[in-house]
Amino acid sequence: VIREHALHLLQQVLEGRLSPNDAVEALSIAPFESLGFATVDHHRALRQGHPEVVFGQGKTSGQIAAIVSSLAARGDGFLVTRASPEVQEILRRSYPQSEINEIARTVYLSPERPLLPRTGIVSVVTAGTSDLPVSEEAAVSGHAFGLSVTRITDVGVAGIHRVLDRSTELRASAVVIVVAGMDGALASVIGGLVRCPVIAVPTSVGYGASFGGLSALLAMLNCCAAGVTVVNIDNGFGAAVAAARIVEGRSD
Amino acid sequence: VIREHALHLLQQVLEGRLSPNDAVEALSIAPFESLGFATVDHHRALRQGHPEVVFGQGKTSGQIAAIVSSLAARGDGFLVTRASPEVQEILRRSYPQSEINEIARTVYLSPERPLLPRTGIVSVVTAGTSDLPVSEEAAVSGHAFGLSVTRITDVGVAGIHRVLDRSTELRASAVVIVVAGMDGALASVIGGLVRCPVIAVPTSVGYGASFGGLSALLAMLNCCAAGVTVVNIDNGFGAAVAAARIVEGRSD
Amino acid sequence: VIREHALHLLQQVLEGRLSPNDAVEALSIAPFESLGFATVDHHRALRQGHPEVVFGQGKTSGQIAAIVSSLAARGDGFLVTRASPEVQEILRRSYPQSEINEIARTVYLSPERPLLPRTGIVSVVTAGTSDLPVSEEAAVSGHAFGLSVTRITDVGVAGIHRVLDRSTELRASAVVIVVAGMDGALASVIGGLVRCPVIAVPTSVGYGASFGGLSALLAMLNCCAAGVTVVNIDNGFGAAVAAARIVEGRSD
Amino acid sequence: VIREHALHLLQQVLEGRLSPNDAVEALSIAPFESLGFATVDHHRALRQGHPEVVFGQGKTSGQIAAIVSSLAARGDGFLVTRASPEVQEILRRSYPQSEINEIARTVYLSPERPLLPRTGIVSVVTAGTSDLPVSEEAAVSGHAFGLSVTRITDVGVAGIHRVLDRSTELRASAVVIVVAGMDGALASVIGGLVRCPVIAVPTSVGYGASFGGLSALLAMLNCCAAGVTVVNIDNGFGAAVAAARIVEGRSD
Amino acid sequence: VIREHALHLLQQVLEGRLSPNDAVEALSIAPFESLGFATVDHHRALRQGHPEVVFGQGKTSGQIAAIVSSLAARGDGFLVTRASPEVQEILRRSYPQSEINEIARTVYLSPERPLLPRTGIVSVVTAGTSDLPVSEEAAVSGHAFGLSVTRITDVGVAGIHRVLDRSTELRASAVVIVVAGMDGALASVIGGLVRCPVIAVPTSVGYGASFGGLSALLAMLNCCAAGVTVVNIDNGFGAAVAAARIVEGRSD
Amino acid sequence: VIREHALHLLQQVLEGRLSPNDAVEALSIAPFESLGFATVDHHRALRQGHPEVVFGQGKTSGQIAAIVSSLAARGDGFLVTRASPEVQEILRRSYPQSEINEIARTVYLSPERPLLPRTGIVSVVTAGTSDLPVSEEAAVSGHAFGLSVTRITDVGVAGIHRVLDRSTELRASAVVIVVAGMDGALASVIGGLVRCPVIAVPTSVGYGASFGGLSALLAMLNCCAAGVTVVNIDNGFGAAVAAARIVEGRSD
Amino acid sequence: VIREHALHLLQQVLEGRLSPNDAVEALSIAPFESLGFATVDHHRALRQGHPEVVFGQGKTSGQIAAIVSSLAARGDGFLVTRASPEVQEILRRSYPQSEINEIARTVYLSPERPLLPRTGIVSVVTAGTSDLPVSEEAAVSGHAFGLSVTRITDVGVAGIHRVLDRSTELRASAVVIVVAGMDGALASVIGGLVRCPVIAVPTSVGYGASFGGLSALLAMLNCCAAGVTVVNIDNGFGAAVAAARIVEGRSD
Amino acid sequence: VIREHALHLLQQVLEGRLSPNDAVEALSIAPFESLGFATVDHHRALRQGHPEVVFGQGKTSGQIAAIVSSLAARGDGFLVTRASPEVQEILRRSYPQSEINEIARTVYLSPERPLLPRTGIVSVVTAGTSDLPVSEEAAVSGHAFGLSVTRITDVGVAGIHRVLDRSTELRASAVVIVVAGMDGALASVIGGLVRCPVIAVPTSVGYGASFGGLSALLAMLNCCAAGVTVVNIDNGFGAAVAAARIVEGRSD
Repeated sequence: VIREHALHLLQQVLEGRLSPNDAVEALSIAPFESLGFATVDHHRALRQGHPEVVFGQGKTSGQIAAIVSSLAARGDGFLVTRASPEVQEILRRSYPQSEINEIARTVYLSPERPLLPRTGIVSVVTAGTSDLPVSEEAAVSGHAFGLSVTRITDVGVAGIHRVLDRSTELRASAVVIVVAGMDGALASVIGGLVRCPVIAVPTSVGYGASFGGLSALLAMLNCCAAGVTVVNIDNGFGAAVAAARIVEGRSD
Repeated sequence: VIREHALHLLQQVLEGRLSPNDAVEALSIAPFESLGFATVDHHRALRQGHPEVVFGQGKTSGQIAAIVSSLAARGDGFLVTRASPEVQEILRRSYPQSEINEIARTVYLSPERPLLPRTGIVSVVTAGTSDLPVSEEAAVSGHAFGLSVTRITDVGVAGIHRVLDRSTELRASAVVIVVAGMDGALASVIGGLVRCPVIAVPTSVGYGASFGGLSALLAMLNCCAAGVTVVNIDNGFGAAVAAARIVEGRSD
Repeated sequence: VIREHALHLLQQVLEGRLSPNDAVEALSIAPFESLGFATVDHHRALRQGHPEVVFGQGKTSGQIAAIVSSLAARGDGFLVTRASPEVQEILRRSYPQSEINEIARTVYLSPERPLLPRTGIVSVVTAGTSDLPVSEEAAVSGHAFGLSVTRITDVGVAGIHRVLDRSTELRASAVVIVVAGMDGALASVIGGLVRCPVIAVPTSVGYGASFGGLSALLAMLNCCAAGVTVVNIDNGFGAAVAAARIVEGRSD
Repeated sequence: VIREHALHLLQQVLEGRLSPNDAVEALSIAPFESLGFATVDHHRALRQGHPEVVFGQGKTSGQIAAIVSSLAARGDGFLVTRASPEVQEILRRSYPQSEINEIARTVYLSPERPLLPRTGIVSVVTAGTSDLPVSEEAAVSGHAFGLSVTRITDVGVAGIHRVLDRSTELRASAVVIVVAGMDGALASVIGGLVRCPVIAVPTSVGYGASFGGLSALLAMLNCCAAGVTVVNIDNGFGAAVAAARIVEGRSD
Repeated sequence: VIREHALHLLQQVLEGRLSPNDAVEALSIAPFESLGFATVDHHRALRQGHPEVVFGQGKTSGQIAAIVSSLAARGDGFLVTRASPEVQEILRRSYPQSEINEIARTVYLSPERPLLPRTGIVSVVTAGTSDLPVSEEAAVSGHAFGLSVTRITDVGVAGIHRVLDRSTELRASAVVIVVAGMDGALASVIGGLVRCPVIAVPTSVGYGASFGGLSALLAMLNCCAAGVTVVNIDNGFGAAVAAARIVEGRSD
Repeated sequence: VIREHALHLLQQVLEGRLSPNDAVEALSIAPFESLGFATVDHHRALRQGHPEVVFGQGKTSGQIAAIVSSLAARGDGFLVTRASPEVQEILRRSYPQSEINEIARTVYLSPERPLLPRTGIVSVVTAGTSDLPVSEEAAVSGHAFGLSVTRITDVGVAGIHRVLDRSTELRASAVVIVVAGMDGALASVIGGLVRCPVIAVPTSVGYGASFGGLSALLAMLNCCAAGVTVVNIDNGFGAAVAAARIVEGRSD
Repeated sequence: VIREHALHLLQQVLEGRLSPNDAVEALSIAPFESLGFATVDHHRALRQGHPEVVFGQGKTSGQIAAIVSSLAARGDGFLVTRASPEVQEILRRSYPQSEINEIARTVYLSPERPLLPRTGIVSVVTAGTSDLPVSEEAAVSGHAFGLSVTRITDVGVAGIHRVLDRSTELRASAVVIVVAGMDGALASVIGGLVRCPVIAVPTSVGYGASFGGLSALLAMLNCCAAGVTVVNIDNGFGAAVAAARIVEGRSD
Repeated sequence: VIREHALHLLQQVLEGRLSPNDAVEALSIAPFESLGFATVDHHRALRQGHPEVVFGQGKTSGQIAAIVSSLAARGDGFLVTRASPEVQEILRRSYPQSEINEIARTVYLSPERPLLPRTGIVSVVTAGTSDLPVSEEAAVSGHAFGLSVTRITDVGVAGIHRVLDRSTELRASAVVIVVAGMDGALASVIGGLVRCPVIAVPTSVGYGASFGGLSALLAMLNCCAAGVTVVNIDNGFGAAVAAARIVEGRSD
């Protein structure tokens, strides 16, 4: 059905009854196809503005390999997040040219026609060393979406001058992604230092009354600096997508 | 001390030892002054990119009136949010030219030198009639920050074609603010329809297992459309600030 | 005692003092017997309308084997859910004709006198690949109760047209079981698309603020489409039983 | 736009290019219109199988009156739930022929062309007197949807023979709605007594560790009788809609 | 210091200045001694009315062996609960005459001068097979305290007549301990059937929205049968001690 | 039906085919009757060992008056708990001989044939003045069930010698009811001081992180003194019933 | 008994058999007396190092007046916290020389023999205007215990230089009490700036996902600056007592 | 930049334009340097008053080794907490003179110029054997900060005289750290016995309704003895730092 729909649209373009812009708009809603256990949506990249991503957690190695294979065959590249060491190893063998980041648990194969780099720097800031898996997931994902990513690490607010020392860099950013667990206080301090969009990522780093990241999540949602927005605990990938949504609007 | 600091900076500019750009940067960190129970920060507008806002909840009428008076005297205008009917009435009398929105519980006095309107439309979308106090807070606040706000109301996903029918408008937005309580599902659907930044505002609308907005908050944080960011429950104001941070970057 | 009770009832039927209908009614309340650690209730199938099911979680392999053995001896067949790989292996050897579904973690042996198939299609819909263990548990269980099950997979609302594309199938269903984790939004969208009963199954798929399925559970309980009902997190089996209760009433 | 769409569809029927069944199907997806703060969806009755309902909680009296007025003008009747005493009084005056149930907090005006009564009895069972507001909301709503409702009250399991004494009635029901707070145990007992669908409604009746209905909600979700489904705390209306979805399927 | 205190007390008895009863009372408050990491309180048996018990969870094998050794040397016997398989094996070798219950995870060595058996039967009732580890802990502990324990297993309320069939036994009990997970409904039904004390033990059996036993705990705390008391989740031992406190009072 | 059942039983006694003991047993299960919104169970007193009690919370004044009227007509007396000031006033007028305790929020009318007083003292111990409404509910309820109640007030553990000073009284009790909010520590201390049954009642006294009594509830469930049992937050009545269940067994 | 105990102790001192130091030690454990509903402990001031305090929340006006009367009669003075306006008015009339702080909700009457002022400054720092009721409770209570209190208000971290500007004052403090709601981030920043003890007081200021102060409480417990300790939500009084415990040790 | 800043400061001291005291103050805010994944702050010891500590949880062995190596090279010594057995082994080999405490999971290397011992005893009190890992972490950390630590173990309140027997020791302490899980009641009892600062450390010891330490945490926050402060669950290290902050102030 979808194939026919697409043909119909293109035919209308050929006949001059549909403008190319409208055809793209129409196409960006509809097409996808079925892969048995997963509907791979090859146009999602177009629709959402980024390459196809496979969320590795909760999927078997076999399922991931099959999905990745379908994507790679089209030259679209892929980004696998939450890739277990086993999955990393399987994909390393099949796609030796892929980039693997063990801390971020990501496997990335750039598409044959790479994304044009976006203008505007996205700073990924971390409070502590233990937050690196999440901040690296954000950084690698941002890179895959064509963003210019800068990392600023280990600037937690218990030594407030560590972050103040980086304020010029932070103020020059197009977007700041703040990754912090425990008290999540870094988001509040940075939210007050910069005018640009700030995306806060609570992490599950901590123990006891951090309740798996709940403490940082609630603190960030109650951030005393207005206009800071929040994504799910440990969701470095989501923060990168949010940054890409912002930067793309700028670049258009 | 701060006064002296400022004089020192300006003197340096006069003497050509400090560029104007650097002076603005320096000033944007420091100055504020004390009002007894509240440190009013007249430069926050400069630093954060929006007029001074008074969060009315938890403050007495007298405290609000005193803060507002300090702001109005400088011609900066003001925006009071979470203004009780009593506060609305008091400010209506003192500032008859202020705009009061009873549903949003806001009182707004535009500054003498109004903000230049920003390009790019911010759509404020609500799932149901009961969400209006929050979405109106977002809309009024956005207006105060110079944003071009469009309201799209009562398009909850139980009638999915209501929101699909507005997809052209939504896709043309620079930012979409989605306001929804209960299942918060509207954020997921819109997050998949548009490429621009989506800011989700969970509301405390609901009863029973909504637990004061927890259901919508968790659903939005777990949004299956990547890159949707979330603010605190009922925080229409925060969503508007986040939108302003995004749009300002675009307009620079 | 129960044996005597049953004999007494049947004797009354023979003597014409009790109608067959009343005898069935009486029998459906009472009889069961003891197996040491577990009271196996052979008439539960009659009373509840489905074959005896063994919930494998929290039972030792030995306990499961003993219960299953008691059931199989009567020719009633059995359905074991939440069967660990070890249990699957043990039962595979003892009952080579049983059907094992590794994803669903089920072992099913059809009764000697199979159930008459029920009219009316039960659609089992999943939001994502990671939800398959739960949706497969529902599908296999439904099959065991004589339902006609159709699977519709990977139609999460982030690509809303994936589910809209299946709306004709969905509308033709007697019952729809919606299996989704994270934001649980699929239940709200489908609840608004169809008139038939919709049973929502939240899954523990997700991380961080999904809190083990809490996010989907709360979202589904607050579903903005009226009349959607909910079962426990990951309870694919319970959803199938609920569907069987509905379809059986139709078929009588 | 919708009007034209409908005309187009009907025209196609007249010309024989569209079967009446398909036209109904098509119409049942689309039409709705805007009422400023609320999109009133006049075809929702058709699509969902019940009259338009106004959820009164969180709406002002004025908003409710405006929505009701729009509905009543078409002869569709209306059902207002969670109507405050003030709203009850306003509607009593405007629609003296409406039926007001103070315990259920409902106002009901039957449509000019009443629904055909459905076959099959829906039993609404309550554990205690304090649960009546919720069970009455279910009973009144069920009546409005054309269901034959029987009330069985105050049969909590602390006196187990109270509910056993009604088992014949319960077994003869097409659907049983169980309304209970505190331990929610009634749902488990009834779920084991009957073969028909059981919809459990936890109530916020209780104090202390009932945590606003959480105790009954969790107990019902963990119901040891398989196949019992659950709706939101205090959601008598939702249970009635779920029952209507079930009974309608039977009656087709 | 304690030794001197005891000598002083006994001396006073010899001299007739202190009655034996008063001496026992005085002794029952004070004496204990230190074992490095654990203060072993040899008189606790006297004071609390039961043999010394070692709670095995969270202690190393070495710590348990040392404490047990101190107790056994005095001929007091011991009861180790939550004994891991490793601890069971170590104690089996050192105390071959001890009784090990693998399901209950207990190791019991009866004291040289056994307790007089108490009159009055304590019934330990379980809802399902998966609850056996907890109910066996209760039964074994009760036995160690000299109680006459009867086990009634697998009588969950989904088949209500299973428990009703045992009502004569239950009514003849001095105390009933009800062990149930999931909905915890068995406590409510039994609480209404019997007049004697009912101690409810929620178990962590279940999954999803049972949240580790929270569902049963809350349900039991909100038990609709008045006068049912509750102990911690999975605390079979505590329930046995509570029963011993009750029965001892009776027997005095 | 029940009337006939009772007649049949009594007839059997008259004819010598049923012993009086068995008849009482049989009667104690079954009889009750319907009062419209509430099934009043006149034999519950017999079955549960205490007079009929009306839980006033969540019932209207009219409902309470009607239930009480039914009970009083039989000379059974009544106990109304959680009686609002309005309900207290209504009942004071209708039953001037009733005893009203404003702190406990109870109204009590002793039955015409009063209960024989039970032997054994029940001590009701409170940690602080703010806990009095709950402890008085326990004390008044215990009195209504024929218990000998002693009050020990304001002996919180912050001044540990206050409670130690009462240890002789406490040790002489048949049952101790401990009423405490906040840290609930009093239950742990008393549980270690006495050998008799200890029933802990957490109260909602406190603020902030007491979360409506949750802190005391959890502390009491985790009581380090073994064998302490717990009832619902603020449930003074339930504690008294539990004490009555214990004392009655002793007295038989 | 207590009177005799005290006489005995003093007699021993007179006779030279007990040193005065030991007598004070002995006395500081024991004496108290009963006031019906409340055991007033006149020596608690001695034992705990501060005047007697009456926690007003949850007590009736009559109860508070009676307790206060007992204290005032001895010339000990009193501090009533959480005093409602009604209680403030009653005490204002009876004790015109008392100091009433409406924001702090305190009534304070200094003892006839005032405390010697303690050396060392206690800084009470607040994040925002809405936190004043809690910080004033801390400040007034500290004053009553003889502490030298300095207030630093409205220095939330969204404008980080507001707090940095006060760092000299903060570093010169003996103890810093940090009062903050929402994200509680101020405690983390100050904890890193100073070497002295920092006591964090989360407040219930906020809405939505602050969940009554839970967000600030969890953030402060997870404070990334080591050695910050936390008291209950809104517990300004407790923080002052903790500061007094610290400062007294210094002053000895 | 920092190096230059420091040189500048020292130069000013040499020139007599800056007092040494002021130079120390200035230095204590600023200097730190970057180690790739972690900014090691060598002056933190100076600023916070204790040696550099590495929190081992959530860091890889390699990261810990690298950080430790940087610290050891300067002769500052180090304290690693939450060191896994693997980390303990690695550091044992590299630093054979380090002290390893397996129960506390700490590795400590004293600095070349050891801290002057502080006056004043810090008592670390534990309720039960299972709390030892946390109390040992506190004791070892306190030792590393130069505190004189005394351990008082296994004095839970179920045997109240165990703690009373130690009251003289407790009263002689400068600070008491109370480590307890489950009901956390020990903090309340000790808080009432002593006048000095009390720091309560809830532990995750327990099961069921202890919810990972939540029960002890909430109980301690609601401690009925005023002025007790609380740190995170299992945070023995944080309690030691808090004690050091207190004792250092005393010693100045």
